[in-house]
Amino acid sequence: MTDLLAAHRDRLDAALTAIRSRGYHSAFPESPSPRVYGETAAADGQAAFEAHLGTAYAVETPGARGTVVTEESPFGIKLDVSYPRTVEAGLDELLEASRKGLTAWRNAGVDGRTGVVLEILDRLHKRVFELANAVQHTSGQAFVMAFQAGGAHALDRALEAVAYAHEEMSRYPAEALWEKPAKGDPIRMQKNFTVTGRGVALVIGCNTFPTWNSWPGLFASLVTGNAVVVKPHPLAVLPLAITVEVCREVLGEAGLDPNLVTLAVEKAGDGLAKPLATRPEVKLIDFTGGSEFGDWLEQNATQASVFTEKAGVNAVIIDSTDAFKALTGNLAFTLALYSGQMCTTTQNLFIPAGGIETDEGHKSFEEVGAGIAGAMGKLLGDDARAVEILGGIVNHAVISRLELAGEYGEVVLESREIKHPAFPDAVVRTPLLVALEAKDSDVYGRECFGPVSFLVKTADTKESIELFRQTVTEGGAMTAGIYSTDAGVLDQAREAALDSGVALSENLTGPVFVNQSAAFSDFHGTGANPAANSTYTDGAYVASRFRVIQSRRHA
Amino acid sequence: MTDLLAAHRDRLDAALTAIRSRGYHSAFPESPSPRVYGETAAADGQAAFEAHLGTAYAVETPGARGTVVTEESPFGIKLDVSYPRTVEAGLDELLEASRKGLTAWRNAGVDGRTGVVLEILDRLHKRVFELANAVQHTSGQAFVMAFQAGGAHALDRALEAVAYAHEEMSRYPAEALWEKPAKGDPIRMQKNFTVTGRGVALVIGCNTFPTWNSWPGLFASLVTGNAVVVKPHPLAVLPLAITVEVCREVLGEAGLDPNLVTLAVEKAGDGLAKPLATRPEVKLIDFTGGSEFGDWLEQNATQASVFTEKAGVNAVIIDSTDAFKALTGNLAFTLALYSGQMCTTTQNLFIPAGGIETDEGHKSFEEVGAGIAGAMGKLLGDDARAVEILGGIVNHAVISRLELAGEYGEVVLESREIKHPAFPDAVVRTPLLVALEAKDSDVYGRECFGPVSFLVKTADTKESIELFRQTVTEGGAMTAGIYSTDAGVLDQAREAALDSGVALSENLTGPVFVNQSAAFSDFHGTGANPAANSTYTDGAYVASRFRVIQSRRHA
Repeated sequence: MTDLLAAHRDRLDAALTAIRSRGYHSAFPESPSPRVYGETAAADGQAAFEAHLGTAYAVETPGARGTVVTEESPFGIKLDVSYPRTVEAGLDELLEASRKGLTAWRNAGVDGRTGVVLEILDRLHKRVFELANAVQHTSGQAFVMAFQAGGAHALDRALEAVAYAHEEMSRYPAEALWEKPAKGDPIRMQKNFTVTGRGVALVIGCNTFPTWNSWPGLFASLVTGNAVVVKPHPLAVLPLAITVEVCREVLGEAGLDPNLVTLAVEKAGDGLAKPLATRPEVKLIDFTGGSEFGDWLEQNATQASVFTEKAGVNAVIIDSTDAFKALTGNLAFTLALYSGQMCTTTQNLFIPAGGIETDEGHKSFEEVGAGIAGAMGKLLGDDARAVEILGGIVNHAVISRLELAGEYGEVVLESREIKHPAFPDAVVRTPLLVALEAKDSDVYGRECFGPVSFLVKTADTKESIELFRQTVTEGGAMTAGIYSTDAGVLDQAREAALDSGVALSENLTGPVFVNQSAAFSDFHGTGANPAANSTYTDGAYVASRFRVIQSRRHA
Repeated sequence: MTDLLAAHRDRLDAALTAIRSRGYHSAFPESPSPRVYGETAAADGQAAFEAHLGTAYAVETPGARGTVVTEESPFGIKLDVSYPRTVEAGLDELLEASRKGLTAWRNAGVDGRTGVVLEILDRLHKRVFELANAVQHTSGQAFVMAFQAGGAHALDRALEAVAYAHEEMSRYPAEALWEKPAKGDPIRMQKNFTVTGRGVALVIGCNTFPTWNSWPGLFASLVTGNAVVVKPHPLAVLPLAITVEVCREVLGEAGLDPNLVTLAVEKAGDGLAKPLATRPEVKLIDFTGGSEFGDWLEQNATQASVFTEKAGVNAVIIDSTDAFKALTGNLAFTLALYSGQMCTTTQNLFIPAGGIETDEGHKSFEEVGAGIAGAMGKLLGDDARAVEILGGIVNHAVISRLELAGEYGEVVLESREIKHPAFPDAVVRTPLLVALEAKDSDVYGRECFGPVSFLVKTADTKESIELFRQTVTEGGAMTAGIYSTDAGVLDQAREAALDSGVALSENLTGPVFVNQSAAFSDFHGTGANPAANSTYTDGAYVASRFRVIQSRRHA
């Protein structure tokens, strides 16, 4: 296992350097180009993905009862992959098997475990095209996005989490000599410090980002000495089944118990997460999903350290700009990407009723809306290009919300149904833009997940900032933005962002978007507002995943 | 404030070095000798303490209603200090005042806050004799112990927590330049990272170690940018009133809001802790005390990160020794120190029914008990010397438990009442030793806090280790020990200690005791068994006390 670390030492060291400086870093190339990955990589990956379709996935889960098929592709293709079905009655067996390898895993030591996990990431990278297809057809992300967000970027985030965990575990020496001055000889004690995992970690995956949102917690828990039970969203199992398969393969090859990582697939409606999350063996939980269940976990799974990413009301304040066209282009892309189904997509755009000053002269509230709508029209005008940005609608609940949202105010831009040229049964929609009044906080103060954004008409930027502060403090946010040419306004926005605990993007007009966070540099979520109780990735995200146990004796 | 850090830079740097190596380090001399602290220091400190008696303590608490007198000295002297009384109806006012200075405190920055907190520690050190008297007369610790555990060692632990917190906050750069390679010019973003506190932190003090157990959490929360409400145990207010006074004094001098640290004294029975702990403003809680309330906090104050130190069943396994006399002497001191009223005092001594091999030949179970009893008799034979080890009994509940405990099994050593030569009304008792059978786990499996220890007769060392593992896993432990000359047995004990998550002291026969942990080197508690959910002090103890909020813009 030490050999495994040696093989990946450079990758680890570069990641450790990156988290210290938080400048640009990437270990896994984000371009799916044949020039990077080779001529046959894309086709091979697709073939590997297609080979899963209609089969029983070859992964064993202790305590499982029969199999279950749960996925439906947003692109309309038939997946029909069956998985072992975990039910409440099988949890004793699952958790007993899960814990069986813990002592050997602890004894593998910090470097041994780090080597194993880095090898897992490397193997996942070798299957990145297969994973991208699996992410695409479960989440609805278009292929390139699935490759990046679901593959390369997810690997970078996972590596970032492993780097933090490795650094955290390495803060404590393995041994120490304690010499206390005393009359005559000093008093000498020899001490040993051992990193031990907490027990079983549970990862509860989500539908939209099955890998990106699961891997940081999964690998942070694994590398710190825990066993991990992975419970995917019923609609997005395959990417995590592949993940678990790779984990088990590497663990087995290293002479460790493959059951240190297990896959617990439930049938939608089985309600497996609650009994699983409150089991005394479960000491760590990572969850991405709705606020209702996230809050429930925080309040009820009190035997565990719980890391949640939930809903929020992401906001952008528009005060003024010296690049109006670029502003509208930047926002249009943000709202359109993956049909606004990112936890980081802007929902609320606060714009003064009197309009804003721009490089193109004064723009009224309506002209700002029209500008964004126009940019959206240009971006999504060509169906073949549009589907590669929009992807598919992840599930039926999104469509229901979209259908209702037009009623909330004045429709500035209608949502449009698009036929996918390659997947006739895909469900594709463009974003809806609705203008609201400042008083409509019962609408914009709650998350309306999907391709729906609100242009909120405020008295002035002062009110915009106040509403931003209020909605984020109460409803949470994963992202926030401000457009202003006024240094004083920018300062006020920064202060409001610090007070409400959200990261702020200022005047984004180029190829960086408020809904994107770069691994190793941008923190994803803050843990300082109701949208998430932790961040990807900092010390707090990893430090409580293990404990240090000492022994001492006279030296 | 930066000047304050400059003034204490060396102290901080030495602490930072110490937590990396976890060798011996101390910043605050533990000897109360006039050679160290000056000829008048002891008398001055005592006078300062006595000046408090019978007065209204000059500390203001927002929202307080009238005053309250709550303390009773275990040494029988009349304290009669009154404090502002905090009641549930005043919490709105208290917490609003508490939060008022948060923005300025955040803006003081990592170094500014660190300087303020190091200055507070320095001022507390200047009042260490006054504090020692206050700790002595509220906890019942004898003077030298109160000086050390309640003064110098408590300051070391506080400094250790501040060092970890400083290091943790310094993991993130204040700014970063992100340059992503792209066709043509790289994409450049300038990023800022700001450490922000979580909000209000609550520290719930205990009766036995009002400073040692409160300061690490208090100062870890304060230095990371939070406001702190200190709620002392009603029987041990004065040491924390002095603490809060010093904090407010230094904050005020630095131009910060003194209400960033407040004292919330309740009348015993007011039940202030529950409504206070569940307020939404309270984001961090540090608690030392009984398991019932500690568990309640963990399960109910889910809006906060909760750090608890609770009850446990500390154990020592006696298998064999090459230094029987030293073993009995070491254990006798451990059991006698502060009448066994330390959360780290050994309760259960597991000894084989067939006895043990020693350097003095074979010793039967009874002879091992007699050896410890004999060493105890020698240690405590002289009353004047005995009271300086035993101190006073902290409260009436301890006496009640002691009176019952003789019924649990065969009394090996009776508890003796001692008249304190200096304090005629002091309540002083020597430890009781009771022999139990292995089957009596309903007795030794629960904490019997106070001067009561059990000699548990086991079939053999294998059973001792098994019972050790079982009782610690179920009942928790702050400390554990093993005496064995057999390398194999030591290995098994280490394995059992790792599995049950408790620190292990091996073959202590010199001037180091299982109930003592040295700041900067020994972790106090592990967070890995039910006795505590965290440790003094590691990364997990500090990392979740703040969040990092970023902003970014095109560079």
